[in-house]
Formats: sequence, structure tokens, C-alpha cells
Amino acid sequence: LQYQVYLQCQETNKNVPKCVATKSKRNILVLYQYRLVSVLLLQPLRVSRMRSVLSLSVVLLLCLALGVVCVALWDGSGLQFNWHPVLMTTGLVVLYGYGSVVYRVPFTWGQSKLPWKLLHAGLMLLALLLSVVGLCAVFGNHNKNHIPNLYSLHSWIGLTAVILFALQWVAGFAGFLLPFSPLSFRKLLKPFHVWLGGSILTLSVAACISGINEKLFFVLKGDNHTASYSNLPPEAVHANSLGVLIVAFGLVVLRILTNKSWQRPEPDQQETAYTVGKCLRLM
Amino acid sequence: LQYQVYLQCQETNKNVPKCVATKSKRNILVLYQYRLVSVLLLQPLRVSRMRSVLSLSVVLLLCLALGVVCVALWDGSGLQFNWHPVLMTTGLVVLYGYGSVVYRVPFTWGQSKLPWKLLHAGLMLLALLLSVVGLCAVFGNHNKNHIPNLYSLHSWIGLTAVILFALQWVAGFAGFLLPFSPLSFRKLLKPFHVWLGGSILTLSVAACISGINEKLFFVLKGDNHTASYSNLPPEAVHANSLGVLIVAFGLVVLRILTNKSWQRPEPDQQETAYTVGKCLRLM
Repeated sequence: LQYQVYLQCQETNKNVPKCVATKSKRNILVLYQYRLVSVLLLQPLRVSRMRSVLSLSVVLLLCLALGVVCVALWDGSGLQFNWHPVLMTTGLVVLYGYGSVVYRVPFTWGQSKLPWKLLHAGLMLLALLLSVVGLCAVFGNHNKNHIPNLYSLHSWIGLTAVILFALQWVAGFAGFLLPFSPLSFRKLLKPFHVWLGGSILTLSVAACISGINEKLFFVLKGDNHTASYSNLPPEAVHANSLGVLIVAFGLVVLRILTNKSWQRPEPDQQETAYTVGKCLRLM
Repeated sequence: LQYQVYLQCQETNKNVPKCVATKSKRNILVLYQYRLVSVLLLQPLRVSRMRSVLSLSVVLLLCLALGVVCVALWDGSGLQFNWHPVLMTTGLVVLYGYGSVVYRVPFTWGQSKLPWKLLHAGLMLLALLLSVVGLCAVFGNHNKNHIPNLYSLHSWIGLTAVILFALQWVAGFAGFLLPFSPLSFRKLLKPFHVWLGGSILTLSVAACISGINEKLFFVLKGDNHTASYSNLPPEAVHANSLGVLIVAFGLVVLRILTNKSWQRPEPDQQETAYTVGKCLRLM
């Protein structure tokens, strides 16, 4: 902004330093007026938003409590297995996707980063916990029914995703949340953290697709009890569509993550802007 | 570079314009010396590289000729089906991956973009042709053996990838290779082209993983003729490892594509640098 003001002044006015000072003061006044109007207008909206957040929290807590009760009643049956796709998709795709785009919400950029860091870490921890419980669901079901574990490509890819996710969470916590973590380590870790984050989501999507595909071939055999997958009964169309939606969701999240202009402005950039401003004032 | 020179001069010297001119001349001289030394030293290496390229081309042409002969002898059998995973992986993952990172090779940045554009388009066309032939292999095999087509999630995701790839190639050809394509259309198309390129690779990887997984469950049934997939016989370990390598390859390509500092400098950026240089000379 400061640099734009300087360029405008250079084009139109001979007394550049005076022009820059006047234009900068005017800009600050306009910003304060805008802030006052937005506070007055948005107050009722904020109260309504608080209510929505409260209702959503209550519903989510109820879901969590019911989920814990169900998990406590696990008996290794097919009903227990059903928790595997539900929890893995909710954890490794949906919550993971929401958690990963927290820093891409523009209205948070002017605010302190810490609350958003905590939200990011919290959502990711919840996603990790859900996916670990989802793994317990399938291991318990396999062990009860003497089915071998971890032989399919689906399980190799899925387990790799969960292990990398756990390592990523621990490294992220140590690097970005512990206050004594050195700045040089944070700078080194960040691009790797961002890349591994996107890679884990890609692995999760691949695991989901292969898992849904595998399950449909397992259960829709076209015998006396079930329709054949190749006849595309409604449950097959439903599960295939779920797979397509998972891929679409993953691609949208990856698009948001890789768009440079949607990234939270970094301290480095602010420092550069400050230095440019300082240079211009010195000139 | 020009701006850095200016900042250095501002810090150390009072006669800024003279200092900038001297330093810029010195930089140009150093660059020319570097170019001369590199040409003299790299000449023998280039001759050897030309020989390697020639041998590689001959081998590739032989492979292509043998492939065409094999395809001409297709009879709808299981051997025909085997071409499906080979051609899809070669086309949609390997060649697609190589084709997509053509612009990320730094030594090409100083050269004209057109030959690299043609190489990008050529590799992508070859990848598209191979994947279409790969689709023909599976459709022919299914039709001969009265197996329904396009019911599994694997086929939905894979076919979506090929259709999007074909559309992407046509749009890319119309937008970036036809000389009368307007600059505004190119600017609009480019970020979408880059994003869709990465998305197609993600879809291809998901389709490969689900396809390998599905095929292993089909053929390793643990009956009189085959081992059981759950016992992880050598062919299962081999195919699972291939799946893991495909995912790793895809993630490395996506990493190369999304790294901003590995992107070919664009005319826009050159124009900006030129404008900044011009401004500095005017000051």
C-alpha cells in the first residue's frame, strides 16, 4: 500500500515526501471509518453466529458421546467393521481437510495466529484419534474372525497415511506449538510440513477409493443374499458416488492449499513490506 | 538483481547512479565469462549426451514397434487384459509425470519456450494415446468374455481421469499452441490448466491403487491354482510394492509441480523486473 502511494505520488506530484505523508494519513482515516461501520453493522450478525456455534457444539458433543457408547459396545462383528469406513473417512478426509485449510480463511489473517494454530492442531488431533479408532475397528473385527491383517495394497497405503499423519502431528506440535522451538527449525520444517500435509491427504483419498472398491467386491457377490456389483444395485451407485465425492473434496482442499494467493501472509513478507516502507521514508 | 545492486549502492555509496552503472557492467562481464567457461567445458559432455539420447530413441522406437505388433494380435484373452495395467500406468502416471515437469528443468528457462511446449504437448499426447489403447485392451477383454463394463469405482475414477486428460490436452493445445489464441485466454487458462494437471495425476494414482488392489483380490483367490492374497505370496508383494512406488512417484511429481521456486519464470515477472529496473534508472 505504502509503495503504491509512493508510485502514485511520483507520477502526479513534484513534492513526493509531502504527498506520501498526506495520502498515508488519508488512508489510515478511511481504514478506521471502515472498521467503525463494520463493527456497528456486524454486531447482530455476531450474536446470531455465536448461537449457531453453540448449537453446533452441542450436536457435535452428542454425536461424540453416542460414538463413545457404540465403541464401548464393540463385539468384533460386521457392525463393528462398519465403523472403519465411517471413522477413517470422517477423520482422514473430512476433518483433516477442514483442519488443513484453517490458515486459508482471509478474515483470520489480521488476527493473532495462536488461536488458529490451536484450532488447526485440535482438529488434526481429533482427526488422528478418529482414524486410530477406525483402525482399531477393523483390527478387532479381523482378529475376532481370524482374517489376516495388513496384506492388501489398500491397507498398506492407509496405514502409511495414518503413521505419517501421527509423525506429522508430533513434528508439527514440537515445531510450531512448543514456545522454545527455534525459529530456524520452524522455517526449515514449514515447507516440508505443508507438502507432507497434502501428500497425506492424497494417500488418504487413494486408500478410501481402494477400500470402497474392495468392500463392494467383497459384499456384492451376486449370490442368494446380495445383488452383483456388476449390475450396479442402488448400494453400489451410492458407494461409488461417495468415492467420487471424496475425490472431489480432496481435490478442492488441495487446490485451496496450493493457491499462493490464499496463503496467510507470513512474518517474513510483513518484514519485507516494512523494510520497503522504511526505505521509501528514508529516500 | 538490478534492485539488489541498487540497494547495495544505497547502503555503501553516495553517488548511487554511478555505483549502479559500474556494478551492473561488472555483473554482465561475470555472466559472459561464466557462459564461455561452461561452453568450453561442457562440449565433450554434450556429444556423449547426444549419443545417449540417440540410443534411447532407438530402444524406445523398437519398444513401440513391438507394442504395435502385440496390439495388432489382440484376441480378447487374459493376455490382452494384461496390457491394461501396463499401458495405463505407463501413460497416465509415468509419461504423464515426465511430461508435466518439463517446464521445471532450470537449464531450459533461458531458452525459447516453444520447443519445450512442443515436448510437453508431445509427451502428453503419447501418454493420452497409450491410456486410450489401455482402455481398449480392457473393453475388448470384457466384451469378449461378457463381463460388464464401467461398474466399479476404479473404472469410474479411471475413466474420469482419461476424459479429463483428453479435454485438458485439447484445451491446452487450443490455448497455448495455436498462435492466434488471445493472451487474455492464455492467462485465464493457465492456473486452471496447472491445477487440473495435478488433479488428473491424483485421479490416476487413485485409479491405479484401486485397480491393482482389485486385480489381486480377483486372481489370488487361494484355490487349487493360485495362492491366497491374504498369505502375501511373492506376486502380491511385487504388485503391492508397485502400488507404493506409483504413489511415491505421484507425490514427488506433485511436489515438483507445486514448488513455486521451481516454476519457469513467466513473462509477467520479467516485465515487472524490467519496469522496476526502468524506474530505478529514472530515479
